[in-house]
Amino acid sequence: MKLLPFKNVAITGGFWQKRQTVNRENTLPIEYRQCKDTGRIDAWKLEWKPGMPNPPHIFWDSDVAKLIEAVGYSLAQFPDPKMEALMDELIDWMEKAQQPDGYLNTHFIAVEPEKRWTNLRDWHELYCAGHLIEAAVAYYQGTGKRKMMDILCRYADYIATVFGPGPDQKHGYPGHEEIELALVKLAEATGNKKYLNLAEYFINERGKQPHYYDIEREQRGDTAPYRLGGPDILPYAYNQSHLPVREQKTAEGHSVRACYLYAGMASVARETGDQSLIDACKTLWDNVTTKRMYIHGGIGSSRFGERFSFDYDLPNEEAYAETCAAIALAFFAHNMMRLEADSRYADVLERCLYNGIISGISLDGKQFFYDNILASHPLYHKYSGQKSPRRQDWFGCACCPPNIARLTASLSDYLYTQTDDTLWLHLFAEAKATTTLADQTVTLETKTEYPWDENISCLLTAEREGEFTIAIRLPEWCRNPQIEVNDQPIDIDAVKKQGYAYIKRTWKSNDKIDIFLPMPVERVYAHPSVRQDDGKVALQRGPVLYCIEECDNGPDLAALRLPPIAEFSLKDAPQEIGGVPMLVAPAIRRDTTGWENKLYSTEPPKYTATTLTAVPYYLWANRAPGEMTVWINE
Amino acid sequence: MKLLPFKNVAITGGFWQKRQTVNRENTLPIEYRQCKDTGRIDAWKLEWKPGMPNPPHIFWDSDVAKLIEAVGYSLAQFPDPKMEALMDELIDWMEKAQQPDGYLNTHFIAVEPEKRWTNLRDWHELYCAGHLIEAAVAYYQGTGKRKMMDILCRYADYIATVFGPGPDQKHGYPGHEEIELALVKLAEATGNKKYLNLAEYFINERGKQPHYYDIEREQRGDTAPYRLGGPDILPYAYNQSHLPVREQKTAEGHSVRACYLYAGMASVARETGDQSLIDACKTLWDNVTTKRMYIHGGIGSSRFGERFSFDYDLPNEEAYAETCAAIALAFFAHNMMRLEADSRYADVLERCLYNGIISGISLDGKQFFYDNILASHPLYHKYSGQKSPRRQDWFGCACCPPNIARLTASLSDYLYTQTDDTLWLHLFAEAKATTTLADQTVTLETKTEYPWDENISCLLTAEREGEFTIAIRLPEWCRNPQIEVNDQPIDIDAVKKQGYAYIKRTWKSNDKIDIFLPMPVERVYAHPSVRQDDGKVALQRGPVLYCIEECDNGPDLAALRLPPIAEFSLKDAPQEIGGVPMLVAPAIRRDTTGWENKLYSTEPPKYTATTLTAVPYYLWANRAPGEMTVWINE
Repeated sequence: MKLLPFKNVAITGGFWQKRQTVNRENTLPIEYRQCKDTGRIDAWKLEWKPGMPNPPHIFWDSDVAKLIEAVGYSLAQFPDPKMEALMDELIDWMEKAQQPDGYLNTHFIAVEPEKRWTNLRDWHELYCAGHLIEAAVAYYQGTGKRKMMDILCRYADYIATVFGPGPDQKHGYPGHEEIELALVKLAEATGNKKYLNLAEYFINERGKQPHYYDIEREQRGDTAPYRLGGPDILPYAYNQSHLPVREQKTAEGHSVRACYLYAGMASVARETGDQSLIDACKTLWDNVTTKRMYIHGGIGSSRFGERFSFDYDLPNEEAYAETCAAIALAFFAHNMMRLEADSRYADVLERCLYNGIISGISLDGKQFFYDNILASHPLYHKYSGQKSPRRQDWFGCACCPPNIARLTASLSDYLYTQTDDTLWLHLFAEAKATTTLADQTVTLETKTEYPWDENISCLLTAEREGEFTIAIRLPEWCRNPQIEVNDQPIDIDAVKKQGYAYIKRTWKSNDKIDIFLPMPVERVYAHPSVRQDDGKVALQRGPVLYCIEECDNGPDLAALRLPPIAEFSLKDAPQEIGGVPMLVAPAIRRDTTGWENKLYSTEPPKYTATTLTAVPYYLWANRAPGEMTVWINE
Repeated sequence: MKLLPFKNVAITGGFWQKRQTVNRENTLPIEYRQCKDTGRIDAWKLEWKPGMPNPPHIFWDSDVAKLIEAVGYSLAQFPDPKMEALMDELIDWMEKAQQPDGYLNTHFIAVEPEKRWTNLRDWHELYCAGHLIEAAVAYYQGTGKRKMMDILCRYADYIATVFGPGPDQKHGYPGHEEIELALVKLAEATGNKKYLNLAEYFINERGKQPHYYDIEREQRGDTAPYRLGGPDILPYAYNQSHLPVREQKTAEGHSVRACYLYAGMASVARETGDQSLIDACKTLWDNVTTKRMYIHGGIGSSRFGERFSFDYDLPNEEAYAETCAAIALAFFAHNMMRLEADSRYADVLERCLYNGIISGISLDGKQFFYDNILASHPLYHKYSGQKSPRRQDWFGCACCPPNIARLTASLSDYLYTQTDDTLWLHLFAEAKATTTLADQTVTLETKTEYPWDENISCLLTAEREGEFTIAIRLPEWCRNPQIEVNDQPIDIDAVKKQGYAYIKRTWKSNDKIDIFLPMPVERVYAHPSVRQDDGKVALQRGPVLYCIEECDNGPDLAALRLPPIAEFSLKDAPQEIGGVPMLVAPAIRRDTTGWENKLYSTEPPKYTATTLTAVPYYLWANRAPGEMTVWINE
């Protein structure tokens, strides 16, 4: 399956248009300013000299790359001459910074040139290269300008001479994966299979014995034991090089690295058809999504090493669930979607997008979470060494803000995939898409207030009558989806396959598809082995996960109980969180009478009636500070 | 209230005799061996010279002191010529090590003599002095030998010249409190009020402005910001010097330091009658025991700084609850018991002793917990940076093992207090106590299998008939205590005051007191603001807290539910945990059918019938490794 040409899909209204507008108007200028003020932009002038303060850091290039990538995607639909000029200037510096052999990295050119390629394990050279490649492809897709892509092709060509199976080449691979998926994008954008082959080389070499990181460590004369990222159950599991990738059965180590790798593996497998690699992707997908994923789509539950821990270990208040990790899982899902038409991939993608990813940014697009906890007590953070329970302006390690910006700007890429005669609708958003189906140009215009509204309506325009298939995702969360074509109901059971309704017919202009996805409030339970969630329930409406906050429910949220029979009503939220539907239900609260000066008592709990009000999880911490919890005692 | 002469009380059987036997036969020899092997003992020879490995550490003296203290107490009832000779030899080295001015500290004599008294904030000089003083008093009480006490009197005399209000004296106080309570013990043992005055000086000076730790820091030329022990909400709260002690309303900072200080404050207040200090002790007592104490008597919930966090914050799996902190709370309780005849102090003391203290040592007395968690998943520890969920042979920071040894050896000191005509029975143990009451020698012999058995029977021997009072504690956990004297029931309501039954009568030899404390299994709930325990129940029988372990109940303990109506039966535990009563009840367990490859589901939980088996909490981790939890879903 392929994506639609990037410029041919536009988000034209609704939920994601609002997010894209905020992204363009608030987030991108803020991120440019942060990159400028912290020296990340000017690092490309290569003016830093030994003895000067603020040397370019080993991962600064990636932050700037993600900014360029976000701007590139945004420019595809929304001209912004000022921002474009800033990017073009930056790309000019980049061109000048590029070394004669093609090498391109501000830190290892300006600060430690003698250390180039000497520590793939810990430093971020190939990771930065990957982000620059992704940026180059996006900037080309968004603006049609090839300059950055040409620069990065030269860099990639050089990398392909350094790394490879030859006797004079390094048999290494990145300690922080990312370049694998980027190289497949570059191969797609340029048609040059060399980049695909290099991606495949990195993936296949990973975890082989003798271990490359042992070899390069010895070459450095480094005798220190490897301790990065906390305790390692398996040596090198932190960076997924503990085993060759096809032998890895569980998702291990740093979760962003892991899912970038898996997304790269899925990209390569798609292009090569390598069945053993496809199988490896599915095995890891199953482990991540059925054993190690939060209900908000976050992954990497342990903050000790920002890593996966073990099956069913999903602490809430202590969750790590880095924003970048949920984004990485979305990339993995997006690539699996293209590999196999099974709705479980888009189900996870949607779970991440509406919950654990956009929780990482404030509603105004100006502040960011690094970790996305599922329960919060405002005092807990002061004593636990955890990050603040309020979104921050920026981070020293600033991976998350530009990551969410580039994803938001590229969201139109996630709605559809296609073959020559089938168009899949994976996500529901107000959008206009034009592509070639069954040898003619077809346009699909979608109107919807999804995820708040249950109705999605699509209007088709075609050059002529023609037979092709439109495959509509039937979301896992929806018990009773309904589809009508030109007001005639479709028998979904008859056309359903792996979570999509395949509507094959002779289509013509003005054909209308109405999708109705009933969205009652659902109570969701976790697997009995998730010890942190037992006895608790989460609330979901459509794809949107809800939580309860102190500002609506008072303190001591754990003292609230949601009776199993309580009925929900919808109520508009305050405008400060956008007036979206809140959930309101009768509930009970533990009575504190008789508990004065007592910490423990044999008196069984007593309750008083109260009301429980839940808001979309991603909107939490946009109002007064206080407690929050996703999982509610039932 | 005063204690009975230490040599006059002997534990003669039952629960604590077993613990004292294990302590004497296993723990003390192991601890001597560890102190010997790690260099702690030989450090007293002062043979360390610059350039040699393993220099005496700043807190080594305290470990050795606690060992001497434990041996001293133990020798009071149980001769052990070999161990006594080893201690005498050590005390001889100590005498030789003492400097002409009286100073005594292996680190600051041998390693950094120029740094004496330059950093009271972070180093442990006065703390080590305090432990040596306590050891000296114990060794004197247990053996009658004065040598060590004479050495420590000289050291204390010297300290009293260094610290004090005079213009040439330092106005400082210990960063790790301990010496305050030790000095009061020394004053009691020697009759010399100077030591009491010095303790009072340290307490009164604490937290005054300008702050002594700022002054000494400037004197050291140290400009580093103070960061010890994690984030500090209030400057110097970590070591309880953020405010003068009488202005402290909540228990803050490192919990061992805190309760050693509070115990010292209560000791001084008892001797001086200072009402403002008594009030401060009560305020802090209330905060600790009604807002910040685990059900097992542990305190200091946060491992970031081994400290108190905030009211009602009592995480279970992530608990810190250092063994030493529960012991420190027992010391605080013991001193409050002597200040005021209110059973709440002995209730807390008993809670600590049977639960959060002895959980710190294995049943065979050979291994130790530093932290006493209330829930454990064997894999969690690998990913959380927490200590092992199995007891360890020893620790680099070895405070806990000898602390539990000295407490166990001195346990007879905790059973009774008295005035001239009243004897209080605080704890129930098989013991023989002889003292002077109403001007005659009275002996009380107690027989009981408490805490497993509900019956306690006491036999009195007197020189002649005489009127005095025996006050018997009515434990908080007991709903319906019954007392008979010579088979005649006592009307408890008529003689009850602040948790004690005062039986005033003319006593004579062979008078018999029978105490019956019914011990049904009790379900205990936590305050509604303890968010970690809401929806859960703990099980207690008598003073003994229970837990469930994987080896009895299978994995996924959170998937078990204890129905509110379930009836308990008692069953003998396996001999490997001493055959004590286990609790058995019908329960239900979440059914995993239908959960294959699913992490979240809208299907409400289903249950299958099972049996729940609980064992005393303090015995956990003495059998096969696995999950454990105190708080059970109800």
